[in-house]
Amino acid sequence: MKTVILAAGQSKRMKPIEDKNFLKFLGKPLIQHQIESLVAAGFNDFIVVGGKHNLPHLRELKRKMRLQIHLVEQKNLSLGMVGAVIDASEHFGNEPVLIVSGNDVVDKSAFELIKNSYQDKGVNGLMIVKHCPKYFPGGYLKLDKRGFIKEIIEKPAQGKEPSKVINLVVHLYKNPKTFVKYLAKAISNRDDLYETAVNNMISDGYKMKAVMYDGFWQAVKYPWHAIDLWKHFFDTAVGRLPKESRISKKAQISPSAIIKGDVIIEDGVKIYEHAVINRPVYIGKNSVIANGCLVRESHIGENCVIGKGTEIARSYLADNVWTHSNYIGDSVIGDNNSFGAGAVTGNLRLDEKNIFVKVNGEKIDSGKNKFGIITGKNVRVGINTSIMPGVKIGNNSFVGAGIVLAENVDDNKFVTGKWELRVSDNLAVLDKKARE
Amino acid sequence: MKTVILAAGQSKRMKPIEDKNFLKFLGKPLIQHQIESLVAAGFNDFIVVGGKHNLPHLRELKRKMRLQIHLVEQKNLSLGMVGAVIDASEHFGNEPVLIVSGNDVVDKSAFELIKNSYQDKGVNGLMIVKHCPKYFPGGYLKLDKRGFIKEIIEKPAQGKEPSKVINLVVHLYKNPKTFVKYLAKAISNRDDLYETAVNNMISDGYKMKAVMYDGFWQAVKYPWHAIDLWKHFFDTAVGRLPKESRISKKAQISPSAIIKGDVIIEDGVKIYEHAVINRPVYIGKNSVIANGCLVRESHIGENCVIGKGTEIARSYLADNVWTHSNYIGDSVIGDNNSFGAGAVTGNLRLDEKNIFVKVNGEKIDSGKNKFGIITGKNVRVGINTSIMPGVKIGNNSFVGAGIVLAENVDDNKFVTGKWELRVSDNLAVLDKKARE
Amino acid sequence: MKTVILAAGQSKRMKPIEDKNFLKFLGKPLIQHQIESLVAAGFNDFIVVGGKHNLPHLRELKRKMRLQIHLVEQKNLSLGMVGAVIDASEHFGNEPVLIVSGNDVVDKSAFELIKNSYQDKGVNGLMIVKHCPKYFPGGYLKLDKRGFIKEIIEKPAQGKEPSKVINLVVHLYKNPKTFVKYLAKAISNRDDLYETAVNNMISDGYKMKAVMYDGFWQAVKYPWHAIDLWKHFFDTAVGRLPKESRISKKAQISPSAIIKGDVIIEDGVKIYEHAVINRPVYIGKNSVIANGCLVRESHIGENCVIGKGTEIARSYLADNVWTHSNYIGDSVIGDNNSFGAGAVTGNLRLDEKNIFVKVNGEKIDSGKNKFGIITGKNVRVGINTSIMPGVKIGNNSFVGAGIVLAENVDDNKFVTGKWELRVSDNLAVLDKKARE
Repeated sequence: MKTVILAAGQSKRMKPIEDKNFLKFLGKPLIQHQIESLVAAGFNDFIVVGGKHNLPHLRELKRKMRLQIHLVEQKNLSLGMVGAVIDASEHFGNEPVLIVSGNDVVDKSAFELIKNSYQDKGVNGLMIVKHCPKYFPGGYLKLDKRGFIKEIIEKPAQGKEPSKVINLVVHLYKNPKTFVKYLAKAISNRDDLYETAVNNMISDGYKMKAVMYDGFWQAVKYPWHAIDLWKHFFDTAVGRLPKESRISKKAQISPSAIIKGDVIIEDGVKIYEHAVINRPVYIGKNSVIANGCLVRESHIGENCVIGKGTEIARSYLADNVWTHSNYIGDSVIGDNNSFGAGAVTGNLRLDEKNIFVKVNGEKIDSGKNKFGIITGKNVRVGINTSIMPGVKIGNNSFVGAGIVLAENVDDNKFVTGKWELRVSDNLAVLDKKARE
Repeated sequence: MKTVILAAGQSKRMKPIEDKNFLKFLGKPLIQHQIESLVAAGFNDFIVVGGKHNLPHLRELKRKMRLQIHLVEQKNLSLGMVGAVIDASEHFGNEPVLIVSGNDVVDKSAFELIKNSYQDKGVNGLMIVKHCPKYFPGGYLKLDKRGFIKEIIEKPAQGKEPSKVINLVVHLYKNPKTFVKYLAKAISNRDDLYETAVNNMISDGYKMKAVMYDGFWQAVKYPWHAIDLWKHFFDTAVGRLPKESRISKKAQISPSAIIKGDVIIEDGVKIYEHAVINRPVYIGKNSVIANGCLVRESHIGENCVIGKGTEIARSYLADNVWTHSNYIGDSVIGDNNSFGAGAVTGNLRLDEKNIFVKVNGEKIDSGKNKFGIITGKNVRVGINTSIMPGVKIGNNSFVGAGIVLAENVDDNKFVTGKWELRVSDNLAVLDKKARE
Repeated sequence: MKTVILAAGQSKRMKPIEDKNFLKFLGKPLIQHQIESLVAAGFNDFIVVGGKHNLPHLRELKRKMRLQIHLVEQKNLSLGMVGAVIDASEHFGNEPVLIVSGNDVVDKSAFELIKNSYQDKGVNGLMIVKHCPKYFPGGYLKLDKRGFIKEIIEKPAQGKEPSKVINLVVHLYKNPKTFVKYLAKAISNRDDLYETAVNNMISDGYKMKAVMYDGFWQAVKYPWHAIDLWKHFFDTAVGRLPKESRISKKAQISPSAIIKGDVIIEDGVKIYEHAVINRPVYIGKNSVIANGCLVRESHIGENCVIGKGTEIARSYLADNVWTHSNYIGDSVIGDNNSFGAGAVTGNLRLDEKNIFVKVNGEKIDSGKNKFGIITGKNVRVGINTSIMPGVKIGNNSFVGAGIVLAENVDDNKFVTGKWELRVSDNLAVLDKKARE
């Protein structure tokens, strides 16, 4: 069986995160975690569909993972999933094909489930589906009593859902070449070509069955999903690692530092005096946690320096992040960031309402009343700057000192305040002189 | 003997503190401390005069204290002390009546003193008086050689005091009904009707004697008096509590936290790693002192969370106060307040002069060169905001992030800064691109 | 042999430091360190040339040091070194004279070197010289093969240096009266009268020899040199002091404080809970390092209070400095300074380029990409104020709260921000009322 991994999407809603497939969790990119899950479930022959923007990274990944991976470049990214599968089909033979997307992160048990079901007779394909009591803008299913799919309805308006069951992109086709033909012929004036192809197959008598899955699932759509995701990978890793190996023997931890509960601390980490690490926490290779820091429920990438007195709470930090006496709460911080002393993320509105984030010009409810900021790569923030909840700072942008930043910053910008100072004679001194 | 407690005053000078009688110290409202002092001194039959604004709280107090308390509503609050005593008189019999006010906090020894003196023959009434070398805007006494009062002069101009002796409102009348008649007949065009009534009684031959008291006394007039008061109640409590019971066994204290000297720590308190508690300190039920905090010479009410790295110095905090990496010095903080990370109270002018506070439109010298801020209830303060010494923030008011607040804020306001940012292309990045 | 110490210079480039001779390192002024070095090398008869501005301090120094010191006032400071030596010459006899300047700090080995060489026959004078591969605006030497000086060229343009060898002002003249005559007769329209005199002597056949020195040398020209200097004096002192005497037995150090590596801690110092002192660090008499502070690679003078949670990194602090939850990095802080809670020094540009400092109207490259601020004496900085890298604050100047200070402040100024607040009704509260 072959597995197609759809990794060409451009993740515009993830901005300033450039490619969600290469968001690193516990030292590995998201796509590697997915492939490792598939391998653990018994899949071993991969076709990865990328785009021009991430093929170099995919090549590097292929080299590192030493698996049977065919890399395919999707030329026309605007054709989405349909284009990706058609481009991948050059590698299709007569064996079944599993299609998996980086947009849906699931547990390896989802892959095992589909593997255990695919030899069912009288079934031409399978989809992993999930009971979803709260509205989600995805593909809802009409099912018959035996679990066969009657129709997929992509992104119905809220309240118009035909059921509470949505499909995750973990789809198996026993005759992939047939499916590709349906994809090539599908016509729709909405963004549901793929679903139209499936519906057409079903109309023509092909049998697609739903496989109910109740394990971990996280859509990877908005930047804040990084916070939910790292914890999933942490829990999975902690489940696997024996307790005594979670803190590297090559880490240096001051006797006055305190580590509470389950943490993973990699080689070369240094934890200085009176720091406190409060579970769950991941600290990547060669990162430093300086004096008096508090790190709790957070992911710290590699080569970070969490400077004196900083608190990192419920946040995801990529690699090479430097902080210094900051509070970073409920935030997603990109690679190679630096925060001047006293810079602080706001993570709670004064009125304690939910935090909204502007995504592609639209204000999106993060669903959280505690949420901080999102930064791209190569961001610098000046001393004593205050960043309001839900603000995004683009790649390569600098934010000066002493600012209250309440709006998003694009890529490659320099933001400073406009200050007016009053300079007068210091009467206090004159008074003193008069007294003397 | 009956005791009248005057608790109807509206404490305008205490704003934004709404009712000084219900300022809580060590888990109990001020008026309860006063009643308990009276009970300890042997008094047990109370008439408490309240106003419409605090009768519900007084009823709740009566229920809780299980003492013989008659609650009286003073209908016309503008009649002040005179109106209060007249309204209370419906409960007067022929036994003596002690009149006590929430404006003067004294030690139980003052009550014992008056109790020990009231059976002196040839005396119709007694007043607790105090030697007061520094001018105080109160009722000064002309005394004869044997300690009998010749006249009370209410609020003489500074320099016009007839003596250095003032009366505290701990007054005993053996014939209270007679006194009430004098009160009812007194006429004055100044705010001294009560004193006029006493002076008229004396003119008519009644004998009022001064009982000199040199114990603790604190007028409760301005919000900053809360700081002086909590220490008094702390000292009194510490004197009573055996050492081993001052820190509750139901408190959780990290082994790396350090507690120095006499403190009282109530049930359910949690003190986290590397926190330091430096005497005298009171910490109310279920409050949390987080990592690396320093709490010194301060009163922390119930259900507070003193967040990571905060310093609380010489301050009074009511219940439900949340802080986070703040410095709160020499301040009076109301119920249900929250301070964003990096918000700081200024508590010393750069020129080190005394701090003035605007009270009812008038600038009042706090008498202290170290004094911070005063907040009402339900106040929120944004991240990195700086509040200047002597500033008051009203009830239900929010102060945004990154502000320098140098003026008082009324009740129910939202204060934000007006920011102007400059956004330009980040030349640093362009330079780097050019170099590459 | 007599030693002339030139100490009358006005150090304008050192502003706001008023007199570099009296910059205190490890409890002693710079000039005392120099004299002690000379004494250690065997010199003991001094002529110190001061100006009106520092004669009182020099007299006090003479009283304290109990050495043979002739104080001379240089009347006309505009005549510089030449005037100083001529004024000093009233004390010259027939013995050789060593001329030393406060502008060049060298190790005692430089003085030993010149002492060991001065009896060489056929030599009329000696100069300590140093190989200086990087351009320095000083006096470059043309030397012959045997090390005799052919000519001094003062401040050649960069690229026009006649050699890589400069002279330090450690000059010995065997016939000082002759040299004084040359000084008196020298004529130049550039600022090189002294060098002209030496060149004239050489032209007339006097033999001046260069003594190559490769020990410690630091020009004392700009304020940031204080940071380089204190470390030199620290290293020298640590080399001399036995390990067990470096931390005074009269210092009080909390058992939870951590001291790492070589430090010098003087009498009366108090180090509180969870503070960390990280080598090299000098802490002067009676200074306090409060809870949770981090002091690293820094010089703290006497009677300082490094308040709760402060970090002092790679900085020089004079006496009487008060901090409170600050970050002071790579800075030079004058006597009697105070920093409000949350005030922070920026010490790294966002673009990580070198820091420039405005000196006498000209922007000077500090040569460092990590450099903070320079303050004079009696400076006050308000809470949450941010001071940009390279900023200087003059003597007796105050900087208000919440400011971003990006420009130098003159002496005797009061700088505040100009704030505009918006005060509106707090709709959050109104909403809540509506809901209730």
